[in-house]
Amino acid sequence: MRPAAGAPPPIGIFDSGVGGLTVLRALVEALPAEDFVYLGDTARLPYGTKSASTVRRYAVNAARHLVGREISLLVVACNTASSYALEAVREACPVPVVGVVEPGVRAVLATGARRVGVIGTEGTIRSEAYQRELERRNGGLGVRAAACPLFVPLAEEGWGDHPVTDTVAAHYLGPLLEWGVEAIVLGCTHYPLLVPSLERVVGPGVRLVDSASAVAAAVQADHGALLTGRGCGQVVVELTDGSEHFRNVARAILGRDPEHLELVDVNHG
Amino acid sequence: MRPAAGAPPPIGIFDSGVGGLTVLRALVEALPAEDFVYLGDTARLPYGTKSASTVRRYAVNAARHLVGREISLLVVACNTASSYALEAVREACPVPVVGVVEPGVRAVLATGARRVGVIGTEGTIRSEAYQRELERRNGGLGVRAAACPLFVPLAEEGWGDHPVTDTVAAHYLGPLLEWGVEAIVLGCTHYPLLVPSLERVVGPGVRLVDSASAVAAAVQADHGALLTGRGCGQVVVELTDGSEHFRNVARAILGRDPEHLELVDVNHG
Repeated sequence: MRPAAGAPPPIGIFDSGVGGLTVLRALVEALPAEDFVYLGDTARLPYGTKSASTVRRYAVNAARHLVGREISLLVVACNTASSYALEAVREACPVPVVGVVEPGVRAVLATGARRVGVIGTEGTIRSEAYQRELERRNGGLGVRAAACPLFVPLAEEGWGDHPVTDTVAAHYLGPLLEWGVEAIVLGCTHYPLLVPSLERVVGPGVRLVDSASAVAAAVQADHGALLTGRGCGQVVVELTDGSEHFRNVARAILGRDPEHLELVDVNHG
Repeated sequence: MRPAAGAPPPIGIFDSGVGGLTVLRALVEALPAEDFVYLGDTARLPYGTKSASTVRRYAVNAARHLVGREISLLVVACNTASSYALEAVREACPVPVVGVVEPGVRAVLATGARRVGVIGTEGTIRSEAYQRELERRNGGLGVRAAACPLFVPLAEEGWGDHPVTDTVAAHYLGPLLEWGVEAIVLGCTHYPLLVPSLERVVGPGVRLVDSASAVAAAVQADHGALLTGRGCGQVVVELTDGSEHFRNVARAILGRDPEHLELVDVNHG
């Protein structure tokens, strides 16, 4: 669905799949007078296990599709794409591009933690994007990272509050906890869905920092001039694969059906 | 790498990723005088959560790429592609096409079990390809199916013999076991990697039937005339994404490095 003539340009949000709807939800809450178009590249997800060059190709492809929708700015909600492809997406896009890494780093620094953990997909952790940004902003911090490959499948299975997830989380996060981590940045848009299990495992002394609300704050702080104030929180969700599986996960994350859920072709390349 | 002029045409094997290497391994063991070219569509995996139309598009794409390598016949090692796309692949290919569903069904029937379980990805189970083939060959059987979405990620994590996998398997297979299942067909090429955990969970009274060796038997029985007998078990592995992750899983499954591991573009469409 195209916006009606004269309608304010929506904010574009892109993710490898439906996990980025956690970011969309935070944006809708923070910016109720904007409209949104969300593209989930469900035909090619996940990005987190794939190589940098494949992730860049897919991300630029998806960004170009959203730019064709006449968006005001683009939020790359996918952590793996933000880690590997942000520069490539910026070069390909005539609108401002906001990734999730920098807002997530700002948010974890705001906790005052001195020992910071970063968790994410294999791709996000291997890229070291979070580790570099933390080092750049505060070289005195202790930083440790852990890839958690089973977290996305567990979130998609709906096991965010489940003894199996507790066991898997204890396995992945054990080294961070032994080290004395004080705050952990959730470097994957699916991970907020696992917070019930994660909180049990890390205990009350460790802060879990979700970049979703930090992204909304960054959009307001850095790109306030682009906000139209003339929207109504309308959400269009576009997916590159229309499987019922993704529709169900989308509904579970958003807590409602989007106004429009469409299948699109982004010229897979 | 192209075969040398005059070299016998290899057998082509296609899978969404590297799980199909379990089928390749069985083929190499059964047919040591053939050569093989394996295509894993790692840039677009998994197929198991995606829609029938996307799986068909990807499978035909990959099959055409292998046909361009002048193969003698094509084995569709991916259960989801065999379930959703076998007819489409046959229409697109000038060589005989062997799927995994029919050999798997023959193998489970050969056990004499009267209560048969089928496990696989969401796509494979939803397609009902196994259920229909079992019904067609023996309408008197009891058949129950269970989708096991976490099994592929657990296999890729290398947790085929792990307490977490035991717990997850008990969850997915519980209803089959309560019903009194006698044999379970492993309807996904990754699942043989989970056999240690699965055997603990189902106990000695339930047969686990892996279609990999059944596929090799089907190739010999149905397409023996196409076998060249002039190869030497050479294995070329082509992947559409070159992530180290997939290379590592490939090595773990094959138990050795393939002679050639190449990154290819199959004209993603």
